[in-house]
Amino acid sequence: MALIVQKFGGTSVANTERIFNVADIVTKTAAAGNQVVVVVSAQGDTTDDFIEKAGEITDRAPAREMDVLLSAGEQISMALLAMAIDKLGFHATSLTGWQAGIQTDLSYGAARIRKIEPRRIRSLLERKRIVIVAGFQGLNSHDSITTLGRGGSDTTAVAIAAALGADLCQIYTDVDGVYTADPRVVPGAKKLDEITYDEMLELATLGAQVLHNRSVEMAKKYNIDLEVISSLTRNPGTKVKEVTSVEKMMISGVACDKDVARIAVMGIPDEPGKAFRLFSLLSAHNINIDIILQSIGRDNTRDISFTVARGQLDETVKLIEENKERLHFTEWSSEAAIAKLSIVGAGMTSTPGVAAKMFEALSDAQVNIRMISTSEIKISVLINEEDAQRAMRAVHDKFFG
Amino acid sequence: MALIVQKFGGTSVANTERIFNVADIVTKTAAAGNQVVVVVSAQGDTTDDFIEKAGEITDRAPAREMDVLLSAGEQISMALLAMAIDKLGFHATSLTGWQAGIQTDLSYGAARIRKIEPRRIRSLLERKRIVIVAGFQGLNSHDSITTLGRGGSDTTAVAIAAALGADLCQIYTDVDGVYTADPRVVPGAKKLDEITYDEMLELATLGAQVLHNRSVEMAKKYNIDLEVISSLTRNPGTKVKEVTSVEKMMISGVACDKDVARIAVMGIPDEPGKAFRLFSLLSAHNINIDIILQSIGRDNTRDISFTVARGQLDETVKLIEENKERLHFTEWSSEAAIAKLSIVGAGMTSTPGVAAKMFEALSDAQVNIRMISTSEIKISVLINEEDAQRAMRAVHDKFFG
Repeated sequence: MALIVQKFGGTSVANTERIFNVADIVTKTAAAGNQVVVVVSAQGDTTDDFIEKAGEITDRAPAREMDVLLSAGEQISMALLAMAIDKLGFHATSLTGWQAGIQTDLSYGAARIRKIEPRRIRSLLERKRIVIVAGFQGLNSHDSITTLGRGGSDTTAVAIAAALGADLCQIYTDVDGVYTADPRVVPGAKKLDEITYDEMLELATLGAQVLHNRSVEMAKKYNIDLEVISSLTRNPGTKVKEVTSVEKMMISGVACDKDVARIAVMGIPDEPGKAFRLFSLLSAHNINIDIILQSIGRDNTRDISFTVARGQLDETVKLIEENKERLHFTEWSSEAAIAKLSIVGAGMTSTPGVAAKMFEALSDAQVNIRMISTSEIKISVLINEEDAQRAMRAVHDKFFG
Repeated sequence: MALIVQKFGGTSVANTERIFNVADIVTKTAAAGNQVVVVVSAQGDTTDDFIEKAGEITDRAPAREMDVLLSAGEQISMALLAMAIDKLGFHATSLTGWQAGIQTDLSYGAARIRKIEPRRIRSLLERKRIVIVAGFQGLNSHDSITTLGRGGSDTTAVAIAAALGADLCQIYTDVDGVYTADPRVVPGAKKLDEITYDEMLELATLGAQVLHNRSVEMAKKYNIDLEVISSLTRNPGTKVKEVTSVEKMMISGVACDKDVARIAVMGIPDEPGKAFRLFSLLSAHNINIDIILQSIGRDNTRDISFTVARGQLDETVKLIEENKERLHFTEWSSEAAIAKLSIVGAGMTSTPGVAAKMFEALSDAQVNIRMISTSEIKISVLINEEDAQRAMRAVHDKFFG
């Protein structure tokens, strides 16, 4: 007998048929002798409908009340799922975030889980119930409802798995698992059987939307065995764990992020603190910087290039323009039509020549590299957006073809 | 400065425009220097939508999970109302049933409020907030969500008014107040300025759907000044209180209930316990008896006539047939096409001739009276259903014309 946490996203519970599909998965797991805790998101478009309703009333809804509204979504789906499980002859009890003991910090809309008090879940499991918990929500120390923001339900599932010491946390979704590249772009992409937390983190950051960063970080911290699996095909998915047991592949995936814009600020005096001044200005305005590259310019000056999310480009440029005097640069340029192509792999630390192999593939495909950035298990290059698909296929072929 | 509880039903918050209408009423009350607690129902058809969703999954939803589902309805409307109030420049905080301290007994679907712990509401009022509370819901001693069943939001409002010692509890609805008769049937019906709890109770029982019995009973018990008022016209409504201050009208209203069927059981031996045997049988099957009339039949036997809700007629007849031997009667008959016409008035206790006046009106209108039943402040007659409208107008004209 194992204790398994199963998380189902909004598309998995979008309608009656899908809800019964989930109930079937859950009850089969229970019938096999396991204790099961289910974490559900709101049904399909419920959250969007709520946001639209709120938008009809105000374009500046108080964050606390927005969370009250949104959290009703999981309350609906968890009750419906409990009914479906009951219909199949099993006993289920649904719990809201606060009933499940999920305590968060005070920030609305993107609260962080502070602690889970799993007494009630445990007591229900001991009484042979299937426990359904509302994902995405918790309660803060003022006894007000909070929501966890993007990836919230995944985070709820992993946090509950950690609090209960679960044997496995399965994240059911509408894809089969984690692929070596986006199968819609790279036809030869292969599903990975296993991947390490670190690799998954890099892939998540790079725009592979299978799992959210926060949940992977938490899984890594508490060493929770994760599995990404399709609720539709139910084929074995991808396991995410500390160390993968199969012979290490050099790289585990190729990812491409098009939500990128590049800015170059040139002619900054080569004096201590100048770069700091630029980035602290941007940080004060909540602009997230990704890749940074500093090169030596002419006449004892430096050029700094960096990337931001494309939606923040205009604001960034405006800030730089407005602070031209303070920042002491001579000119700037920006570019939106670029993409960031990355390869990720825990194996690359012990394998020389991975970068060279990637650059060779890009060169053969006549893709121009604009910037390069590396971490221990990742190599990213900035390329023109129009080259993105071709580059992705070429790099994927080189490593997996 | 007064402390006022205002309750708004589902039609009053059905869409964005209506929500802003409610926000306008609430904020004007607050701007006049009052402390305001608002109790809201779920929006328009939300509850029906939820019931339909559950019905797609199962025709026997677990009662606990049905309450989890339904209670999401008020959570949606209370958040939207809080946003609208915020948009108008006032501060509002919404509370679910459990956050508002509403503790109920253990029955799902029709829970009764056991206690209200109003600490949090008070603390918010002290901090100059408008407090919005989800109607219809509470929390039981197992920390599970319950709903209060029909008339639940009215009951929530009155219970909160009692717990806070509020100066007034206003029940906003889509009618102007309590009328001397249903204005759709009797064109000359007049709105009452005041009515006593007892009169309101009789009228509510008789099918005037303005206020639910439970809320009136509670208002009477705790002596809460109630006001039934329209959220659309905002004209002064009807005040419900212990003693009305205007010169007492003889009767306060005429009501007609068509959800009635009559059954006669004849030839029951005139021995002790025979009638008891009949009614204990029906009671054991949850059949509610309204009017009972016993008359002496032939040969030392008795005939017993009584009324039940029309939907329970078939079951009642079946039970009587099946138990013919045990009950020792000779024959039975039943009739569905009848109606119960009632006049209600605290004044009739001190005014002789009220019944005679009613019977005169019916006689003049050539309406045949089938059965008569009286209480301290009510006279009910059973008539043919086809006579109902004519009878109602005739009686109303006699007293109010």
